[in-house]
Amino acid sequence: MPHPTELLVCTTCRMGQEIGPDGVRPGARLHAELTTMDWPEGVHLRPVECLSNCDSGCSVVLRGGARRWTYVYGRLTPEMAATVHAGATLYHHTDNGLVPWRSRPEHFRKNCIARIPPLETPE
Amino acid sequence: MPHPTELLVCTTCRMGQEIGPDGVRPGARLHAELTTMDWPEGVHLRPVECLSNCDSGCSVVLRGGARRWTYVYGRLTPEMAATVHAGATLYHHTDNGLVPWRSRPEHFRKNCIARIPPLETPE
Repeated sequence: MPHPTELLVCTTCRMGQEIGPDGVRPGARLHAELTTMDWPEGVHLRPVECLSNCDSGCSVVLRGGARRWTYVYGRLTPEMAATVHAGATLYHHTDNGLVPWRSRPEHFRKNCIARIPPLETPE
Repeated sequence: MPHPTELLVCTTCRMGQEIGPDGVRPGARLHAELTTMDWPEGVHLRPVECLSNCDSGCSVVLRGGARRWTYVYGRLTPEMAATVHAGATLYHHTDNGLVPWRSRPEHFRKNCIARIPPLETPE
């Protein structure tokens, strides 16, 4: 059983667009799409406010415990829920968060905003 | 006594420059500058390899325990060690990692690459 994985989705992202007061933001639309999908046990979807990656949104974060790398991915759109699902599922099945670069969805390969080392380094 | 703070410095950063095999990378120079400074007790400087923010390096990460936000800052140069020191010291003296925007060093205000919520949310 893999460790739990958190998939944080920035729901305040405007993708640089003008959104009226009653409009649904692209980040919220991406999150809504993701909630309709079947997820492996242990993947927890969590809406969050502003990941401060506004110039390159929509944005998600993958993390999962003290032994895994954390990843920030950007330049997503609400239509890319399947890509996020694929990338998150691959991440979920690692111990350390490192999915081989060639195995990642193409969008993840090209739009990694940052990665952060595990809290506990098994060195 | 504040919680411990980790300041991760990407030492592999080339800042987009050609660096010969014997050259010292800008990220390593920034880290070296930071090691010469006096730090508040509880701030731990840690060199790391590639934060995957290569297009906007040099890069650092500030984090500190499960109750603080994590921040990635970019577009730093080896000459900006004093800015990193100031920003990291302000962060260190917070409980949740949130330094008021106006209090942050100007470079930090303009060059936040991403922020990631605490693991434990006191909601």
